[in-house]
Amino acid sequence: MDYKSSGVDIDAGHELVRRIKGLARSTFTPGVLSEIGSFGGLFRLDPGAFTDPVLVASADGVGTKLKVAFLANRHDTVGEDLVNHCVNDILVQGARPLFFLDYLATGRLAPDVAEQVVAGIARGCRANGCALLGGETAEMPGFYAAGEYDLAGFIVGAVDRARIVNGATLQPGDALVGLPSSGLHTNGYSLARRIVFEELKLAVDSILPGIGISVGDALLAVHRSYLGVLEPLLAEPDLVRGLAHITGGGITDNLPRVFPPGVGARIDRRAWVVPALFELLGQAGHVPVEDMYRSFNMGIGLVIACRAADAGRVMATLEGMGEAPRVIGELIPGERSVRYVI
Amino acid sequence: MDYKSSGVDIDAGHELVRRIKGLARSTFTPGVLSEIGSFGGLFRLDPGAFTDPVLVASADGVGTKLKVAFLANRHDTVGEDLVNHCVNDILVQGARPLFFLDYLATGRLAPDVAEQVVAGIARGCRANGCALLGGETAEMPGFYAAGEYDLAGFIVGAVDRARIVNGATLQPGDALVGLPSSGLHTNGYSLARRIVFEELKLAVDSILPGIGISVGDALLAVHRSYLGVLEPLLAEPDLVRGLAHITGGGITDNLPRVFPPGVGARIDRRAWVVPALFELLGQAGHVPVEDMYRSFNMGIGLVIACRAADAGRVMATLEGMGEAPRVIGELIPGERSVRYVI
Repeated sequence: MDYKSSGVDIDAGHELVRRIKGLARSTFTPGVLSEIGSFGGLFRLDPGAFTDPVLVASADGVGTKLKVAFLANRHDTVGEDLVNHCVNDILVQGARPLFFLDYLATGRLAPDVAEQVVAGIARGCRANGCALLGGETAEMPGFYAAGEYDLAGFIVGAVDRARIVNGATLQPGDALVGLPSSGLHTNGYSLARRIVFEELKLAVDSILPGIGISVGDALLAVHRSYLGVLEPLLAEPDLVRGLAHITGGGITDNLPRVFPPGVGARIDRRAWVVPALFELLGQAGHVPVEDMYRSFNMGIGLVIACRAADAGRVMATLEGMGEAPRVIGELIPGERSVRYVI
Repeated sequence: MDYKSSGVDIDAGHELVRRIKGLARSTFTPGVLSEIGSFGGLFRLDPGAFTDPVLVASADGVGTKLKVAFLANRHDTVGEDLVNHCVNDILVQGARPLFFLDYLATGRLAPDVAEQVVAGIARGCRANGCALLGGETAEMPGFYAAGEYDLAGFIVGAVDRARIVNGATLQPGDALVGLPSSGLHTNGYSLARRIVFEELKLAVDSILPGIGISVGDALLAVHRSYLGVLEPLLAEPDLVRGLAHITGGGITDNLPRVFPPGVGARIDRRAWVVPALFELLGQAGHVPVEDMYRSFNMGIGLVIACRAADAGRVMATLEGMGEAPRVIGELIPGERSVRYVI
């Protein structure tokens, strides 16, 4: 009995590492001091770039969006989803990304699939100026169904201490500006898959009724990164006072995470057009509207809180970059919760 | 249809987050600026502690050691395995840990099990002076078998640039000092489980023949951290010239990872007593000896490379801390490979 016969192929792992090295190298920024394959990845923060740097770190997964990738046999987008999700999670504290590491676990290593996954991660890293500094590819016989894998990511970014965005100064009367999502992002997929595949009995290549694109294309739309459009706003001191990334839990659960005590939000659902995909899911699944806003982003992927007097400038800056922001509500006295109008 | 009926229980997730907060807080060091539950965890490197800090990061998993934890229904040690594995992976570049994040994925969230897992992580973090800065608990219906989960960890540490350990100055004649492992650590479990459960047909509470402890106790022995015993050595400039953490791939694959071109190793297998557990696995599984040394750590969890003239001092320092180090070989001219004597 040897290791390979027990279901783990160390040589296949080495071959994958070789392929991954080139992908990772394509993401390297001047801060990277190591090669992929070291026990740890080395990164040196540019000492001139920060006065008093604070590291901001986050871990995340892709969730059951992966199941859609398996069905569509399309493995090169979930990595980008993961990177962008992580980028947004630290961006909402004012940080820009430095480096990223991935964890890819599978039952039996298929180097081609793993390479596609990592290619997506590398594309996402390059687009965000973030180095893919390392990662772990685990072959775990008996853990994952044939052809399936799980994928997690870890990001570290930095922000000057004086420029941390944490919502501490938010107060009633402040404006809430929403930025469009690019689809479901990476949340709500267990519910969405059940509605699409069990309730509507669609296949991954079926055309979604009333939407005109395939289930696979709609559900695999890449989770967008808000780094590029937020940077000009974050460059202005004290303009952006709070930021929420609308992930699992929706606007309902995520927006209040950045509120200080005594603050709540009133959201006007008429302020933006909910994309047709969400309407379809809600109707086909007979999902109560409260659950919709707690399960899906409903078309708003990121919320910016600013003084009411600054809302016009925030909107104009975003519109100048081709964005379609909406003032979706305002802060009110409350206890860290969201009230919906309509 | 609502989110809960689709297999995801957001409220159970919130309850778990509440329980985890206390565990995480118990690990906080002065560098932590955020609470668990923020989108990203905030950490400020003590500016007085480093002249030219380099961040060192690593991602890892526990592998199929988790299957033993499932069988034994013991979930409070795998987190410590994970933290210690990650700590060692950055320690071998000279870094000491700053913070850790975990990714825990399961099919259906069992808050009690997840809490035990995180309790182990927190214990490991405290023991290594490492803050548990954040993490992700993912409920992914249809991904994991009932009662099973996967667990990955991400660590960030720091080392002064001038004190990075990378093996660059290693040369033939240098000594190799091995430090004992505490068991299988976190590698070789797919093979070990097959031998123990299928070949030997033992149960998790069976007593291992000739060893006298249960399968569960032997296979779940916690992967040790070498941080404490390495710190005094790393405090001396230029004493430790290379370090290898013996993980998947064994001495055979891991030791050469730190060699510069033109350097190989000769390892004398008579220099240490291979623990009985490895002998049992090799014999019962009829595993070729070459595969044993590429699948398991064989009793050596970390290898220190130093000048031959310094080996006595390294040994004495380690013995003074109650360690049982062994000079297991030396560097020779070669091409980044290991030759075994006997």
